[in-house]
Amino acid sequence: MKSSLVRDNLLAVSELATPTLIIDAAAVRRNIDRLARYAAEHALGIRPHAKTHKSRFIAQMQLDAGAIGLTVAKVGEAEQMMEIADDLLMAYPAVDRARCERLAKIAQTKTMRVAVDSAAAVEALAAAARAAGSVIGVLVDIDVGLGRTGVANAEASLNLAQIIDKTNGVRLDGIMCYPGHIRVPVDHQPSPLAKVAVKLQDAIGLWAQNGLESKIISGGSTPTAYQSHLVKAYTEIRPGTYVFNDMNTVRAGYVTLDDCAARLICTVVSDAVSNQVVIDAGSKTLTSDLCIPAPESGHGYIIEYPQAKITKLSEEHGQVDVRNCERRPKVGERVTIIPNHICPCVNLQDAFWWRESDGSVSHVPVNARGRLS
Amino acid sequence: MKSSLVRDNLLAVSELATPTLIIDAAAVRRNIDRLARYAAEHALGIRPHAKTHKSRFIAQMQLDAGAIGLTVAKVGEAEQMMEIADDLLMAYPAVDRARCERLAKIAQTKTMRVAVDSAAAVEALAAAARAAGSVIGVLVDIDVGLGRTGVANAEASLNLAQIIDKTNGVRLDGIMCYPGHIRVPVDHQPSPLAKVAVKLQDAIGLWAQNGLESKIISGGSTPTAYQSHLVKAYTEIRPGTYVFNDMNTVRAGYVTLDDCAARLICTVVSDAVSNQVVIDAGSKTLTSDLCIPAPESGHGYIIEYPQAKITKLSEEHGQVDVRNCERRPKVGERVTIIPNHICPCVNLQDAFWWRESDGSVSHVPVNARGRLS
Repeated sequence: MKSSLVRDNLLAVSELATPTLIIDAAAVRRNIDRLARYAAEHALGIRPHAKTHKSRFIAQMQLDAGAIGLTVAKVGEAEQMMEIADDLLMAYPAVDRARCERLAKIAQTKTMRVAVDSAAAVEALAAAARAAGSVIGVLVDIDVGLGRTGVANAEASLNLAQIIDKTNGVRLDGIMCYPGHIRVPVDHQPSPLAKVAVKLQDAIGLWAQNGLESKIISGGSTPTAYQSHLVKAYTEIRPGTYVFNDMNTVRAGYVTLDDCAARLICTVVSDAVSNQVVIDAGSKTLTSDLCIPAPESGHGYIIEYPQAKITKLSEEHGQVDVRNCERRPKVGERVTIIPNHICPCVNLQDAFWWRESDGSVSHVPVNARGRLS
Repeated sequence: MKSSLVRDNLLAVSELATPTLIIDAAAVRRNIDRLARYAAEHALGIRPHAKTHKSRFIAQMQLDAGAIGLTVAKVGEAEQMMEIADDLLMAYPAVDRARCERLAKIAQTKTMRVAVDSAAAVEALAAAARAAGSVIGVLVDIDVGLGRTGVANAEASLNLAQIIDKTNGVRLDGIMCYPGHIRVPVDHQPSPLAKVAVKLQDAIGLWAQNGLESKIISGGSTPTAYQSHLVKAYTEIRPGTYVFNDMNTVRAGYVTLDDCAARLICTVVSDAVSNQVVIDAGSKTLTSDLCIPAPESGHGYIIEYPQAKITKLSEEHGQVDVRNCERRPKVGERVTIIPNHICPCVNLQDAFWWRESDGSVSHVPVNARGRLS
């Protein structure tokens, strides 16, 4: 790991070409440690979602802090993360043969699990595993309210579990849910997670009545991470964003700006249009993702100019309304942006800068980016 | 060039892991040839914007068809494209020292021009060029209505031109504008380009009165490309999207679906939620960019299911409302998507597949992606 990092000097940050992504080491360590303490207190496993950082360097820190394994969203991420983790969950159904074959290959040497919600996906995975002489673990994806993927109810989950149980090449390991629709504050009463708990308990009970064990109950998301103890059945949670945070987690009230470890350093490149400056970060740097809890807040938060609003992005330009700022940013000035949604921003980069408290910076590769499948 | 392509067999496309981007060779050649004929007819230079494809393979085809040089949006693109082009325009102001130094280095061996709208940018470029012993060509960016960058009027353009003219390290080469606000049909009467023509003529006249020549007048965008002859002053145009096209150009009425060369092959991975299927293309594949002429049309067009609507994207999931479709797509089925905005989609990939009419496919690297600055 260390050998892939390029050690740089204390002055480097101010000299870097912009836009560039800098990760604050101290904030990352605080974010990882805080969740590790919570999970230990509640005897919950953490399986961090590597989609946020796509970096073995960060994943290794999560594993060192006690993570039981890693979550990935695609096979390309699994192939990168298997170099440092023995236990991987792809929280996503793979159906096409090419991807299933790659998963089956990983399963030859690692614990590889996949969450599925259809018999077609089970058969595709099983066929690939049988051909590779491996066994792929399967979790049944149950929809707990998001309406994206997942079988609708306990009966449907049992039906799929029974198919998995009698299919060679796959192993029934339990249940996965993703409560991505829940974004209430941690202390909100009553917690919408209570409904999730009931739905999972229904399925677990029905499985048990039919002689099927659900060893793993995998839940979690960053917004619900610190409410996870309300779902007694959870054996593990899969937050991703928590490691860096972003304006989605800040504006939802889960964290403060100080908890945002990932910041884009940009340069003001134009002030030719009145009431506006242009920064060198557009949709190819910040993405077009709006802030979910505050879509009217613009395309990110400028730390030095809290009254500024990034109103419009084109690919390489960010148009910033500065009429409410105390002073107008100058052309050539650097500003620091916390993105709305950090995961797809990291995905746009080949590497990021890792900054320690002493100011030293290292270049860290985003190992799993650019791998579409 | 050819050596960087991996020749594959005729059956490969159906076996590729999804999602994956396939470029239709015949459509690209038609798009390039059509614009080349138009430009030749009107004695206009074409300087294609490489931001769309970021690929030397495609850029070489454009140069072979008569392009006078290439446009780029960042230094990292210029550094990639200088391997095949001697004449580059960065249609974007660089101000930070690190980028200016890289541009000055390119200018040691190539014609490197930059469009600017501030004295600060001129001085930053000039200082870097003087240190490198090179000269950077400069175009004055004039705002013709978009309100993003560019000086406001002829007087401001003269002021900046005079600064450039007397600054060592830079060379005054002319004027750039970007009529990105104009999206009317080619035959719209009166054409809003008439106003652009007047504004440019004002500046050119004022420069001439003050003894300054504007050798290059660089305009153009894909939506206005075939109206460019209405601006007599143009010496060159800089369309980018035209080479691939996308739903932005289709729904604006400029081209048909057949002209869309870039298509994403995806797999249906879930049908667990009623009235919906989920495809394996989310915002990390399609981006969150809406269709500019039809923001309500969803996140791309599914060729096999024209009645389907991609209603919601998360990072790796695309939720598709299929209630109006004649039949429901099956889990495991492949579908073909034309993205809303192709430029940032290509930027998400390390490579794309290039498909000839005989079905053979080659792997083409996206050379300039992942280079933020």
